[in-house]
Amino acid sequence: MIRRRRSKLIRIGNVTIGGDAPIRVQSMTKTDTRNIKDTIRQIKELESCDCEIVRIAVPDTEAVAAIPKIKKATSLPIIADIHFDYRLALAALQTGVDGLRLNPGNIRDQEQITRIIQSAKERQIPIRVGVNAGSLPSIQNSNTSIIERMVKTALDYTKSLESLDFNLIKVSLKAFDVPSTIAAYQMIAERIPYPLHVGITEAGLPKTGSIRSAVGTGILLYQGIGDTIRVSLSTHPCEEVAVAYEILKSLDIRQHGPILLSCPSCGRAEVDIISLAQAVEKQLSGIREPIKVAVMGCVVNGPGEAKDADVGIACGRGKGAIFKKGRVVSTVTAGNFLEALMKEIFELIRKNGKL
Amino acid sequence: MIRRRRSKLIRIGNVTIGGDAPIRVQSMTKTDTRNIKDTIRQIKELESCDCEIVRIAVPDTEAVAAIPKIKKATSLPIIADIHFDYRLALAALQTGVDGLRLNPGNIRDQEQITRIIQSAKERQIPIRVGVNAGSLPSIQNSNTSIIERMVKTALDYTKSLESLDFNLIKVSLKAFDVPSTIAAYQMIAERIPYPLHVGITEAGLPKTGSIRSAVGTGILLYQGIGDTIRVSLSTHPCEEVAVAYEILKSLDIRQHGPILLSCPSCGRAEVDIISLAQAVEKQLSGIREPIKVAVMGCVVNGPGEAKDADVGIACGRGKGAIFKKGRVVSTVTAGNFLEALMKEIFELIRKNGKL
Repeated sequence: MIRRRRSKLIRIGNVTIGGDAPIRVQSMTKTDTRNIKDTIRQIKELESCDCEIVRIAVPDTEAVAAIPKIKKATSLPIIADIHFDYRLALAALQTGVDGLRLNPGNIRDQEQITRIIQSAKERQIPIRVGVNAGSLPSIQNSNTSIIERMVKTALDYTKSLESLDFNLIKVSLKAFDVPSTIAAYQMIAERIPYPLHVGITEAGLPKTGSIRSAVGTGILLYQGIGDTIRVSLSTHPCEEVAVAYEILKSLDIRQHGPILLSCPSCGRAEVDIISLAQAVEKQLSGIREPIKVAVMGCVVNGPGEAKDADVGIACGRGKGAIFKKGRVVSTVTAGNFLEALMKEIFELIRKNGKL
Repeated sequence: MIRRRRSKLIRIGNVTIGGDAPIRVQSMTKTDTRNIKDTIRQIKELESCDCEIVRIAVPDTEAVAAIPKIKKATSLPIIADIHFDYRLALAALQTGVDGLRLNPGNIRDQEQITRIIQSAKERQIPIRVGVNAGSLPSIQNSNTSIIERMVKTALDYTKSLESLDFNLIKVSLKAFDVPSTIAAYQMIAERIPYPLHVGITEAGLPKTGSIRSAVGTGILLYQGIGDTIRVSLSTHPCEEVAVAYEILKSLDIRQHGPILLSCPSCGRAEVDIISLAQAVEKQLSGIREPIKVAVMGCVVNGPGEAKDADVGIACGRGKGAIFKKGRVVSTVTAGNFLEALMKEIFELIRKNGKL
């Protein structure tokens, strides 16, 4: 039901973005880039949680010097995040980095931009024009809305890159305010052919930030806008990746591990459905198969939802019916709910050959 | 930027829904309704977390008998959730309940419906036509999509209520699948004038379920669809309420307590911004003032975002600038970030007279 916006395909290292490529999940290391050991360890963690592209901050020449060792330790594409100093961009390009993020708010000199683009073009390295509401260039007309300012900043910068015959471009326009972010992306989506990197900036701590990110990027993705997603949360980057995948999963855009449907419980429930759901979630935690599991507490929606899942349980008074692919395969008593359900789940996964 | 769908205004007890009323946050007790003490305690908890309407399951006559005592203990409107047995609906109406939820999947006999509606009409008690993908009535044509089946079920039921000259109606069409839920609500939104209760059913445990709920209801609310929201999570109902408010807050639809913007941190940060954000969140936890606080880690977006918040801190190497309403009010050293920031926050709240 989602009609994805058509965008130009680009490559960051060996990962495609835009066109018909999957919507890519990316994140950013939070270690001091100059601390090579810590940074590599965090990138390894990002590999294990299926992050597809990693950005690292490159605030000085010591951070630039760390890039070759970091690159050597991972097969994930590495993007250098550059602000203020164009020489860091030039130096990062020389290290063989897979992509650059430039901020139009703080690298603005045309000659500096030209030098970066010449080097990026030689190496065919894409550049993200990364606009952020918190670091927009100052303008004369203070009546211009934040949305228009973001879009204008991105368009002007993109044009200056195009004027240098460079089109390996990706664009982002992030704000904390969700309606502004959406409006800005909608405007730019119609004006440029490049892939868009979507996200809500500085969304906060995981509990509130994941909701804000889900609302903001969910609305954009539903409108077909977005070729790669980065969820920005004040927490470990693997949590950002997990939230990004959950957003994509809820729109049926990508699969990533199990989906657990469970009823909220109510005064009708005759078993402790919340504890059962928690136990199932825990047991599913290492599983990568995109299996849909339903844990249901009563006869109202229980059989319907359990039937619709790959494996499900519909509980009643001290008893539960286990469903597999739409059929009841057994009836179990209260003490055996978890064991019986997990048995069927593991059996199905084994059969699918992914365990 | 959101143009809300026009809907008929109804009243559940003393709470308006639809029309120009705020989008109401509701939840459901998870205690055994027959356990009056536990149920009242949970409703009191729901009062304290700003839940505006409470639904309780009424699965038998003992649960019906509990309603008067429950009603007496709270000023929140109480909705009786009825399935299968129309006599429970009649009995619940006699107890003075504020609203009913009927499931068109399991109370279908026209004479039974007529008797419920006659009684509801006498008392002017609204009824939610609560369609759920897991409990749809069976149909002949198995080619019909789940979306069409949900919409048809709701429309048919609504028509049967209207034919009895009853229009105190609210409608919901919930599925676990987000695109289906959205499509169903979009279809019904154009066909009926009644307020819509939105939610993603059985969304699961808090971490994944809040993301799925945020994506699903966020998209609907952004399209102007939804007059009341219930987030269904396998957890304490106050957590459902908190998630619902966060969804509404991210779209600037309602205010509810502080908003904490914080940077995700990266290799550029020179202070532990994640710990600082966590400490600020903790100290803000009891506060009801809709104050916007920014906790930022570096000079890229820090000053911009801190300036835009009510109170903010933009940290740098061992120092931080505290902003209040767009102006730097002090510069503090690393050990004093939290204290200095909270001082300004509390001062602003006191000035606004809400503490």
